[in-house]
Amino acid sequence: MVCPIISLTTDFGLRDPYVAEMKAVILNICPDAHIVDISHDVDKFDVRMGAFMLACAAPYFPEGTAHVVVVDPSVGTKRRPLLIQTKKAFFIGSDNGILVPAANNQGITHIYEITNQRLMLPKVSSTFHGRDIFAPAAAHLVNGTRLKEFGSEIKKIAKPSFAKIVKQKSGIIGEILHVDSFGNIITNIGKEQLGSMSIGETAHVKIGGAKLKLKLYKTYAEAKEHTPIALIGSHGFLEVSINQGNAAQVLKIQRGDKMVLHRDTGACAKH
Amino acid sequence: MVCPIISLTTDFGLRDPYVAEMKAVILNICPDAHIVDISHDVDKFDVRMGAFMLACAAPYFPEGTAHVVVVDPSVGTKRRPLLIQTKKAFFIGSDNGILVPAANNQGITHIYEITNQRLMLPKVSSTFHGRDIFAPAAAHLVNGTRLKEFGSEIKKIAKPSFAKIVKQKSGIIGEILHVDSFGNIITNIGKEQLGSMSIGETAHVKIGGAKLKLKLYKTYAEAKEHTPIALIGSHGFLEVSINQGNAAQVLKIQRGDKMVLHRDTGACAKH
Amino acid sequence: MVCPIISLTTDFGLRDPYVAEMKAVILNICPDAHIVDISHDVDKFDVRMGAFMLACAAPYFPEGTAHVVVVDPSVGTKRRPLLIQTKKAFFIGSDNGILVPAANNQGITHIYEITNQRLMLPKVSSTFHGRDIFAPAAAHLVNGTRLKEFGSEIKKIAKPSFAKIVKQKSGIIGEILHVDSFGNIITNIGKEQLGSMSIGETAHVKIGGAKLKLKLYKTYAEAKEHTPIALIGSHGFLEVSINQGNAAQVLKIQRGDKMVLHRDTGACAKH
Repeated sequence: MVCPIISLTTDFGLRDPYVAEMKAVILNICPDAHIVDISHDVDKFDVRMGAFMLACAAPYFPEGTAHVVVVDPSVGTKRRPLLIQTKKAFFIGSDNGILVPAANNQGITHIYEITNQRLMLPKVSSTFHGRDIFAPAAAHLVNGTRLKEFGSEIKKIAKPSFAKIVKQKSGIIGEILHVDSFGNIITNIGKEQLGSMSIGETAHVKIGGAKLKLKLYKTYAEAKEHTPIALIGSHGFLEVSINQGNAAQVLKIQRGDKMVLHRDTGACAKH
Repeated sequence: MVCPIISLTTDFGLRDPYVAEMKAVILNICPDAHIVDISHDVDKFDVRMGAFMLACAAPYFPEGTAHVVVVDPSVGTKRRPLLIQTKKAFFIGSDNGILVPAANNQGITHIYEITNQRLMLPKVSSTFHGRDIFAPAAAHLVNGTRLKEFGSEIKKIAKPSFAKIVKQKSGIIGEILHVDSFGNIITNIGKEQLGSMSIGETAHVKIGGAKLKLKLYKTYAEAKEHTPIALIGSHGFLEVSINQGNAAQVLKIQRGDKMVLHRDTGACAKH
Repeated sequence: MVCPIISLTTDFGLRDPYVAEMKAVILNICPDAHIVDISHDVDKFDVRMGAFMLACAAPYFPEGTAHVVVVDPSVGTKRRPLLIQTKKAFFIGSDNGILVPAANNQGITHIYEITNQRLMLPKVSSTFHGRDIFAPAAAHLVNGTRLKEFGSEIKKIAKPSFAKIVKQKSGIIGEILHVDSFGNIITNIGKEQLGSMSIGETAHVKIGGAKLKLKLYKTYAEAKEHTPIALIGSHGFLEVSINQGNAAQVLKIQRGDKMVLHRDTGACAKH
């Protein structure tokens, strides 16, 4: 017997009983669900950080996983609860853009607005749709309820307003997407934007208030300790790291900071 | 196959291996148990906060769940290990009042003192009854061991010494039960105590050092940002919140603070 | 049906999606695995703390558990990925000594270097072997893949460079292994090193900058509040604790500090 998998991503933290209530609701409806926490420490109300975490983790989950995401500054207002089907999995959460990057990566096939009250808790509170709407929806879904029963199919949903990467003469302008607990600075600049830049090559980087010349390494541990380096992290994005040090602290970088990068070719040598 | 469910609530934190040891002990005895963490970040030794969290989450769990709670300033002394059966579920923990609010909500049917050493770990330590007594008891219970085998039935157990709500002419006097990670201030004043107070009505509130006039909203997001409001939270208690802000920080409120509330009728207009 | 058990110990924290990615990879390969977190809050790169936590928790897990440990300052370099078989369980992680104390306790029978790329993720990153090598290895192992398929058997592995206990005339010299979230100070001095020392006896202890006369208690709660005491903790090691207080904060002790202890016999009475 293969247990159906439901992932949870929220900004609830683990101190309060809120995440447990969602799990309890799921197990009432689907007692053999396998529930996996992606993160419950998304910064409060930070739709963008939640979207990033979901997009990082979702590719590793099995086919048919139902991903539930609750980071919801507008709970209880009119924004719609969504169920998105992709070629691989399902995404359940608010129509605030948070599901879109992860779902787009897998190819969206259908989008439904969740309106069927028989698939919600009998008493829906105004403040906790994660427990009252999204958790039961995921449990009914992995139980085999057909998608059309959740509500009408819709076409237009909110797009996330995330930073675009800009390529200019002066270099690639990107942004800090996330600072992880090691202090690694993760940008939105992907492998593909770096073109032919290869291991050992250097680049000039302006990031926060700092100007750096960074060498591209294959892994942290190859670098000297305490020296900032660049590498392509495990999710395919350019990171700035310090081997066994906290790059974000040392360089005073926060999520949302801009980064300007250009490769160290002959023409740029005077920087 | 439906996995039996065991919930865990402790003040152990998740950094130390203590919670994992409890889970490992459970899985030795009942390999198909589904273990759900309610919270392991109850403030150290805070029986009352543990009782509140358990009472919040327990109603959402399926019938037959075994709830294990370990917040135990007196571990290793003579206070008795209890197994409480209710009309819906089971509660296992120390005789310090922590199980009582949640169990009372479901209707207590039988109480047993756990004394049968064959249902404990072979070697019971003096300092970790969660692992050595409570975890194995829960696992044996969901495995089908009959209640009478755990020990003798008892009648009298410790009552929790929690704040009562007082109704006076000057208003309802309650107390802050919990401040959640969003900064929502959760009181012990339930929906029923507010009588006919309805959405949009205002009330005068003294809380900590602050005097406020609060409007009762249906949900956070309907309120202006940065304005304190009142609402009935997802557990049926009156909360003071700030839409997208941290009410407890702004108002300098801590758990245990008193709150005096009276509704804004004509007679109270001069407050 | 009994689900195979996989434990996880890392320094990743729970904020980032890294732990979830490991779990997702495991569930792709072994959908009915029961995954138990030992701790993800090992101090960053602290091989010794990870080894201690694993050694504490591993004895409580059922036979056949696969323990995965990722605390790895040298990820991406040449240190080898190991699979250790003991008389009771399996240990998977880097060849940096972290697996050795726990595995030794159970009796090591075979050690393999994991080299078979068919048992790793198709694309192995340079920075996240936990997800790309160790998680899939554990999942394949509990799925029934034979040990020899992972790679060649090897004999020599890195030994951990942990503190040894020294017995001198002046007493037993040990070290602080861990300070838990209650502030209990856990030493590497085991029950056996204390010989015939019995409950109620006192000892002279130098620890950090403090000199103390400590009485050996059976449990925290028997002691007066706010008085430092000694006891044998739930893992069999000497602890210094304060009943309902934080011993490490009061005595300003950190992990790694030395402790000198000698028993209070007549000859030592002038201390």
